[in-house]
Amino acid sequence: MHYYKIEDLKLFAARYFTRWGVSPEDAAIAAEVLVSADMRGVDSHGLIRLQNYYGARLENGLIDPRAALSIVKETPTTLSLDAHNGLGHPAGVKAIRLCIGKARQSGLAMATVRNSNHYGIAGYYAMLALTEGMIGISFTNSGPLVAPTHGRKAMLGTNPIAVAVPAGCSRPYVLDMATSIVPIGRVAVYQKEGRPIPQGWGINGEGNITEDPARVIEGGALMPLGGPELLRGYKGYGLALLVDIFSGVLAGAGFGERVYGSTASGAANIGHFFAAIRIDAFRDPADFAADMDSLLAALRDSPKAAGEERIFIHGEKEFEKAERALVEGVALSDVAVKTLINAGEQAGVPFNLSPLRVD
Amino acid sequence: MHYYKIEDLKLFAARYFTRWGVSPEDAAIAAEVLVSADMRGVDSHGLIRLQNYYGARLENGLIDPRAALSIVKETPTTLSLDAHNGLGHPAGVKAIRLCIGKARQSGLAMATVRNSNHYGIAGYYAMLALTEGMIGISFTNSGPLVAPTHGRKAMLGTNPIAVAVPAGCSRPYVLDMATSIVPIGRVAVYQKEGRPIPQGWGINGEGNITEDPARVIEGGALMPLGGPELLRGYKGYGLALLVDIFSGVLAGAGFGERVYGSTASGAANIGHFFAAIRIDAFRDPADFAADMDSLLAALRDSPKAAGEERIFIHGEKEFEKAERALVEGVALSDVAVKTLINAGEQAGVPFNLSPLRVD
Repeated sequence: MHYYKIEDLKLFAARYFTRWGVSPEDAAIAAEVLVSADMRGVDSHGLIRLQNYYGARLENGLIDPRAALSIVKETPTTLSLDAHNGLGHPAGVKAIRLCIGKARQSGLAMATVRNSNHYGIAGYYAMLALTEGMIGISFTNSGPLVAPTHGRKAMLGTNPIAVAVPAGCSRPYVLDMATSIVPIGRVAVYQKEGRPIPQGWGINGEGNITEDPARVIEGGALMPLGGPELLRGYKGYGLALLVDIFSGVLAGAGFGERVYGSTASGAANIGHFFAAIRIDAFRDPADFAADMDSLLAALRDSPKAAGEERIFIHGEKEFEKAERALVEGVALSDVAVKTLINAGEQAGVPFNLSPLRVD
Repeated sequence: MHYYKIEDLKLFAARYFTRWGVSPEDAAIAAEVLVSADMRGVDSHGLIRLQNYYGARLENGLIDPRAALSIVKETPTTLSLDAHNGLGHPAGVKAIRLCIGKARQSGLAMATVRNSNHYGIAGYYAMLALTEGMIGISFTNSGPLVAPTHGRKAMLGTNPIAVAVPAGCSRPYVLDMATSIVPIGRVAVYQKEGRPIPQGWGINGEGNITEDPARVIEGGALMPLGGPELLRGYKGYGLALLVDIFSGVLAGAGFGERVYGSTASGAANIGHFFAAIRIDAFRDPADFAADMDSLLAALRDSPKAAGEERIFIHGEKEFEKAERALVEGVALSDVAVKTLINAGEQAGVPFNLSPLRVD
């Protein structure tokens, strides 16, 4: 692994985005979200995607670098926003901030965003509510990769659900989960390594569970959380559909197979959904925090299964990684560094940072 | 199966509840929710539970038949309610109705209920929002049956998530899912039949996956949706925890192991969470309905896996069963009928209904 200063990586990524015409403000936001993913150990959604998810699409005119988020409809508790095919990260950050502002007044608020693009880790946006002592929620749809139960064609995205809830002494609860069992990138790693995937991660083009990663990637599909019907995979399918309804249909964005490129313009037309909830609208935040601490501690301290040493709360591993990154720098893999060097060359923004150390 | 008139069953159940001192209004609500579960084919949450979940606890003073729901805290968008250890069904129905009323004014609203009891099927409450053209959400916590990932002790309930979303020509989407793979009742059925359970449904007291239903029921635990870590069971664990945070902690109700009997009074102290969302706060409801129809039709019409003939939308099977029940009557199993006869005898409210037919 190569360890880089957080600020160095953010500046590089921001320069990369401005190179494609993105405003300095929006570039800084996108850089911040991507580097946060790497800091939290969610490297699949970090800088490794700088070129193929964002740079290439900016270069090809598939993302509008100058688009400004606009309000389509507004009430004291709701916002329907349009990203006009701009980057997903600034659209997401601005949307959840507007949502938090409304919740400050109204107790709760929800916002949808249409005509957006891939916004990175869903948890980032949910966590922005934590600084206000609020519960934050963030959903997004994405291009079809998951087959419905009894189906064999990818019809829904890996559509993540992120919910962040403040606690007291304990770190916050931060759920940030794809509604598929694994992301497609995980299957690709097994393919690259020539290993079979565990039974249940994916199906082949006939709809049968396969251990061959290539059959999943080429003409197959990911399975929703739960896997086969016997293990209640239709619940994961239901959650993926729920996210598509809130992020896609309610937002007036693309949904199902209409996400990514099937529209005339070729734009992704991804949709997001956000919510912010004031704790004190329901009860004393100090009592709430004390009960959160008590519940999370009871789970952590509960008896461990044979061979296990630790029970985790959602987000805990990621907080620990982010704290380590503050001390040691952000760890990037060889592959990630090579990808950044290549991205920098193509964009004329050389990635020539000196790592703090390499191990 | 024995088929009974819907109204006959509702009147019997209502008489049964009033026998224990429940007001006619609340008794009618509880009867309606239980019979609705049987109509929808969710027999595990129907009349079969009349005695052990409700009658026995009313008789033993563990549920207060006369408790009235009260408002602890109220804002234009939120409600914190206290059921004062009354039946869960009337508390739930009144809470979601208050929530819908607030959403009519404010666009969205959320309500929590503390000091409640088992409220039957979560989906019933979410579906009440459909008649107003709104999205309805309903969560509840329940007594601990599910172990966290890496744990071996039941620390969380099967904590269901229910979300109902209106469509246009299509039937609504109604997700109503426990966040465990299966309910404990399903494991008990396998035990009774002397069959091994599928790998992944539950663990034994050491935290290892077992196929022996007895080891799950006695000292073991259910697994959260997803099952083992390899198949990302920590996501199901995260969803179960999410429901406990919203229904338990945010409500100021019991949570984790504090649900059911561990408090001094012996009351369950179950908590519920509800939300109602106006579609027209976000976009034209006609456009929303058309897009819902389009998304649901695309899923239903997508290519089927080998050997499968039909892809279902969530709630679809249950709507079809409920429609059949309107024509044929409500189907109750031999076991359910025997349970009702026994419950009626103990309560002095004889179950002497004539079935429409028996097959």
